[in-house]
Amino acid sequence: MADRFMNIAIDEARKGIRAGHGGPFGCVIVKDGKIIGRGHNEVIKQHDPTCHGEIMAIRDACRNTGSHDLSGCDLYTTAQPCPMCAGAVQWANIAKVYYGCTVSDTDDIGFRDEVFFNSETESQELDRNECLEVFREYFSMSEREGY
Amino acid sequence: MADRFMNIAIDEARKGIRAGHGGPFGCVIVKDGKIIGRGHNEVIKQHDPTCHGEIMAIRDACRNTGSHDLSGCDLYTTAQPCPMCAGAVQWANIAKVYYGCTVSDTDDIGFRDEVFFNSETESQELDRNECLEVFREYFSMSEREGY
Repeated sequence: MADRFMNIAIDEARKGIRAGHGGPFGCVIVKDGKIIGRGHNEVIKQHDPTCHGEIMAIRDACRNTGSHDLSGCDLYTTAQPCPMCAGAVQWANIAKVYYGCTVSDTDDIGFRDEVFFNSETESQELDRNECLEVFREYFSMSEREGY
Repeated sequence: MADRFMNIAIDEARKGIRAGHGGPFGCVIVKDGKIIGRGHNEVIKQHDPTCHGEIMAIRDACRNTGSHDLSGCDLYTTAQPCPMCAGAVQWANIAKVYYGCTVSDTDDIGFRDEVFFNSETESQELDRNECLEVFREYFSMSEREGY
């Protein structure tokens, strides 16, 4: 069963590269034995660095279910998620990830995942108090409106 | 100058919460002193867990510039990026991040960023060889077609 879903993720990856959409990565999301979302890398097609296979599949599943919460779903991806996608998987409440190629395999073909696990962009704190004000406003609104 | 851009990110965050689009987070992207992208959290509006302020701003900047490469750009965000957004920042080649609230501030208001930095979703390798085949196909295509 798991193999069958990975094979469909592989088909997605092939579809993407043959269409010139981006790198060789495909993904499906499964709930209760059924595919509820699928996608492949579209970074080139959409000139958008966030269009990895996992993100495309998560968005597709959310569109199809009308929910941002994919609790109880498994995700099958042809390569181990990069930090961006691993974060998206956590926000989506995905239960389990099955991956094909490892981070090291992906690094071998010139994608930079390995580097990302060991580096970060230069960052600096700025205007923290003004930003905390927005948090406070959000909380007073959410208390007032009950969400 | 940095303050001015953070103020605009704060305005974005306010716009988002007043419209009920999602959490209290806004972001702008700046190149050569000009704003080329902006966005706020739209997780609720789009029922999509990837619609954080930083991702929305990166997508907006990519749409506006027609490129997935935001080298030379700075990103101003009202709260320190979560792992998903920090990954997106790296893929976009953002030069520097300015953030308002810290991860700990965000955690204090009930968002789960702090947890994410110290956990990961259960994962399992599957069908690695079949997935490596897709990598090989991609490379033989890219050599043949010169990209």
